[in-house]
Amino acid sequence: MRIDIVSLFPEFVAQCAAFGVVGRAGERGLLALHGWNPRDYAEGNYRRVDDRPFGGGPGMVMLIEPLRAAIRAARAADPTPARVVYLSPQGARLDQAKVRELAGHERLILLCGRYEGVDERLIQAEVDEEVSIGDYVLSGGELAAAVVVDAVARLQEGALNDAESAVQDSFEDGLLDCPHYTRPVEHELGAVPAVLMSGNHALIAKWRRQQSLGRTWQRRPDLLDEAALSKADRQLLAAYRAELA
Amino acid sequence: MRIDIVSLFPEFVAQCAAFGVVGRAGERGLLALHGWNPRDYAEGNYRRVDDRPFGGGPGMVMLIEPLRAAIRAARAADPTPARVVYLSPQGARLDQAKVRELAGHERLILLCGRYEGVDERLIQAEVDEEVSIGDYVLSGGELAAAVVVDAVARLQEGALNDAESAVQDSFEDGLLDCPHYTRPVEHELGAVPAVLMSGNHALIAKWRRQQSLGRTWQRRPDLLDEAALSKADRQLLAAYRAELA
Ligand SMILES: CCCCCCCCNCc1ccc(CNC(=O)c2csc3nc[nH]c(=O)c23)cc1
Ligand SMILES: CCCCCCCCNCc1ccc(CNC(=O)c2csc3nc[nH]c(=O)c23)cc1
Repeated sequence: MRIDIVSLFPEFVAQCAAFGVVGRAGERGLLALHGWNPRDYAEGNYRRVDDRPFGGGPGMVMLIEPLRAAIRAARAADPTPARVVYLSPQGARLDQAKVRELAGHERLILLCGRYEGVDERLIQAEVDEEVSIGDYVLSGGELAAAVVVDAVARLQEGALNDAESAVQDSFEDGLLDCPHYTRPVEHELGAVPAVLMSGNHALIAKWRRQQSLGRTWQRRPDLLDEAALSKADRQLLAAYRAELA
Repeated sequence: MRIDIVSLFPEFVAQCAAFGVVGRAGERGLLALHGWNPRDYAEGNYRRVDDRPFGGGPGMVMLIEPLRAAIRAARAADPTPARVVYLSPQGARLDQAKVRELAGHERLILLCGRYEGVDERLIQAEVDEEVSIGDYVLSGGELAAAVVVDAVARLQEGALNDAESAVQDSFEDGLLDCPHYTRPVEHELGAVPAVLMSGNHALIAKWRRQQSLGRTWQRRPDLLDEAALSKADRQLLAAYRAELA
């Protein structure tokens, strides 16, 4: 997979991505990252990339031409058609289903805005979709792009080692994790739950499932509506709730 | 404000935060960032920071002691009490209300997990709350911490310049932005909507509000339920919908 990042700070995104799973996916040839700076395509002595909004008001808007030229340069660098994603607070909220969809493209071009945003005509003409990483205000699209790159890199075949794959898989059932414990068994802060030391694998699996269900119900009830619970799941959850009451 | 980051990769978070609003807030003395590496508090030749989970299964769990020692060192570095936030997929989803709340603390300690997560006893004993940045799988808490730092830095008095403040404020009404346009008025990709060139400020304000309402209704209807719409807002939205039909 190839990801091109169009940003006034391409080194920033590259730095955030040099590291961990993304860095390793790069070394293994599974993911290539390239940066494109609209300022390199801006004209005049000042190399302007933004200007004031028509209709007045504060803030600045990114100009069409430097962005369009940067996107075109990125497209032309490789014959594979690219999906262009604009990281924007106006976008659909990223979730793991969207990550899977994005990871299915051979090429992505991630467009990062700064200031108030990008001229709407550029979005209409060049952007396939807008994506937000959540309902909070960031300084621009760069950190959001780094989030997309990390989440997408993890889904590239061969990018994860075994332990990391297990972490990935445990997400896919739509429930929160059960609590985890490691050495020592006895600690000033408490003991490991006896069931985990029992060696009874069926009982351990049942306890973990119940903890996942119970914690999802307590912390993220919205996720329970989506998760397909079996009859056994519903009984485990009912027992968890009864114990609290 | 002071933020301490407990992470196996403290340089990573520092790099992501060296830059933009966070960097400037640092230079202006509004925000101090400090990193603490649990590995520096780990014992033995191998300086282990993780071990296998009790009860079996794949993945690794972060050990209590190196994390607890790193958190304690962070706490001891400054007498101001700190709120400890664990970045975790099990956390409450970050939104702008939570960002405001976190920004209200004089000190935060952000705990970043790697692998499957952190021993539950450490969470019970040392963590005040768990926060997730969204329903997608990342490699660890580091990018999530960088997101929190950026969003929180923007709310420090004096961190933003005037244009940035306007961007921040426009978020606070809970609607998506209207489209933005800048030079040139006529472009191969289209013309700027005539209303924005009219000089009629009341009409422009009304158009922008209508576009914000209409786009929020189209893209993020969930936000409209939260936003307190006036009678005039509802009329503008009805007219927007009528025009589409
Ligand atoms: C309660 C949610 C309401 C959403 C309101 C959206 C209105 C925001 N307009 C001002 C604004 C312009 C540009 C930015 C810069 N941010 C990004 O480019 C960005 C790109 S992706 C992203 N995901 C989450 N949060 C983000 O801020 C972003 C931030 C705020
Ligand atoms: C449809 C949502 C269901 C939520 C399921 C949560 C179960 C995830 N368990 C495996 C797992 C462990 C550790 C990670 C590492 N991620 C973070 O430490 C993290 C810290 S904050 C955060 N926010 C969003 N996404 C994230 O992955 C994170 C990722 C997955």
